[in-house]
Amino acid sequence: MTHGRFSLNQATIKYASLAEALQVAVDTGYETIGLWREPVAEVGLDKAVELVQQSGLRVSSLCRGGFFTTLPGPERDAALEDNRRALEEAHRLGTDTLVLVAGGLPVGDRDLIGARERVRDAIGALAEDARSLGVRLAIEPLHPMYAADRAVINTLGQALDIAEQFAPEVAAVVVDTYHVWWDPQVLEQIARAGKDRIASYQICDWITPLPADNLLARGIPGDGHIDFEPITRAVLAAGYEGDIETEIFHADVWARPYAEVATEVADRYHRLIEPLL
Amino acid sequence: MTHGRFSLNQATIKYASLAEALQVAVDTGYETIGLWREPVAEVGLDKAVELVQQSGLRVSSLCRGGFFTTLPGPERDAALEDNRRALEEAHRLGTDTLVLVAGGLPVGDRDLIGARERVRDAIGALAEDARSLGVRLAIEPLHPMYAADRAVINTLGQALDIAEQFAPEVAAVVVDTYHVWWDPQVLEQIARAGKDRIASYQICDWITPLPADNLLARGIPGDGHIDFEPITRAVLAAGYEGDIETEIFHADVWARPYAEVATEVADRYHRLIEPLL
Repeated sequence: MTHGRFSLNQATIKYASLAEALQVAVDTGYETIGLWREPVAEVGLDKAVELVQQSGLRVSSLCRGGFFTTLPGPERDAALEDNRRALEEAHRLGTDTLVLVAGGLPVGDRDLIGARERVRDAIGALAEDARSLGVRLAIEPLHPMYAADRAVINTLGQALDIAEQFAPEVAAVVVDTYHVWWDPQVLEQIARAGKDRIASYQICDWITPLPADNLLARGIPGDGHIDFEPITRAVLAAGYEGDIETEIFHADVWARPYAEVATEVADRYHRLIEPLL
Repeated sequence: MTHGRFSLNQATIKYASLAEALQVAVDTGYETIGLWREPVAEVGLDKAVELVQQSGLRVSSLCRGGFFTTLPGPERDAALEDNRRALEEAHRLGTDTLVLVAGGLPVGDRDLIGARERVRDAIGALAEDARSLGVRLAIEPLHPMYAADRAVINTLGQALDIAEQFAPEVAAVVVDTYHVWWDPQVLEQIARAGKDRIASYQICDWITPLPADNLLARGIPGDGHIDFEPITRAVLAAGYEGDIETEIFHADVWARPYAEVATEVADRYHRLIEPLL
């Protein structure tokens, strides 16, 4: 059985090397995979490109750029440079989507509005690079519980307010159920995004009690509280035709055999999402 | 030194009995206190009313009603009955504000939209009781990380959408910085609420890393990432003239001597909030 549009984000099997992740994906019936920069860097970009080509898999996205909320200065310049490298990596790896996690408040800084303005400015600074490489800056709103320390962009509406200041081929948004399911405006904001502005759709569940480490608190679809039907229907109604990823950060999931996890999440996709397509 | 509009929410010194909490508040210069139903119930309502009157303190609010998102049936009927008792208690204790925590998704239920509709319906069911007792149903939007298991009302905008369906003397909202600080729309929603719809303003900080138990993750104002100035200025500009509470759920705070905690939070109020008044 193959999984069509369903993409295994590599972070779901975090401890796999790039070669292992590609092999697991192929062996368990995937046609597409979401990559992360760290395992790519481990083997070097040239080798990574070769491995991906040999695998025959599509690359649905590259994670991640962003973390550019620091105040103007060397740290911010370095962050923008790193994002330019990430765009180049995405291009070489054959994906048109670089996922951006904005970054939190600078240490000791409480100016949330200012940090949010710097996200818009950073997208502007990267826009021409993105356009020339044919890679979209995919702004991922993160759940508000990460606003202080990880991402100051916390709703789809806010991500779209920024993305819409640029051409659709330059800036778009990521819809990850884990981050947006609670939002009373989620369905209307997905409709507002439309086909042009949805760069990636990701499915992940919200489980309770919230695990102690809130960075590793994600659930396999079907294990938690999210009703995937209305959000998926809204994404489809918006015209989204791309891959559908799953990205599970959870220590228990990471401890399991890679192929077992890859198969289980695909089973959930076939049960919960595919019937809606 | 007295603390004017600054109110010690009893949950900040959670393990104090009602008598102890009132005494601590008086001894440390408070003129007003926010009460919880459990310590009131421990001594009985009549005795609680007597203790409060003897203390000379205002009661800024009573926590809490709500938890009425269950599906129609005996459990929901019991929840509404309990809320009616809470309204009566608030009235007897001399406060016009009953803080409502909506409740989460019913066990095994993933219909977030339906649960939110039932909150509106519950407010409607309680509106006449509230009006006749002169107690406002103060809808508290809780941080989105509590959407599944504690409160399906997660933004000020959403709380106001419900409150505005009723007269201002019946339904209003609570603005607690801890819950709303991240919201890109927070300042405009505070302005929208205006004097008529802000039943309570509460100050509490967001600290990182988020403590393992997300119910006990609150910080003393000044210890975390929240800039209290813009939110406080917005609340004041809206015309709010009521008490300003602090409510700190944190095991380390609860473990300290009551008077020490009451004094420390008041110091923070004098430093961070009072200069803005």
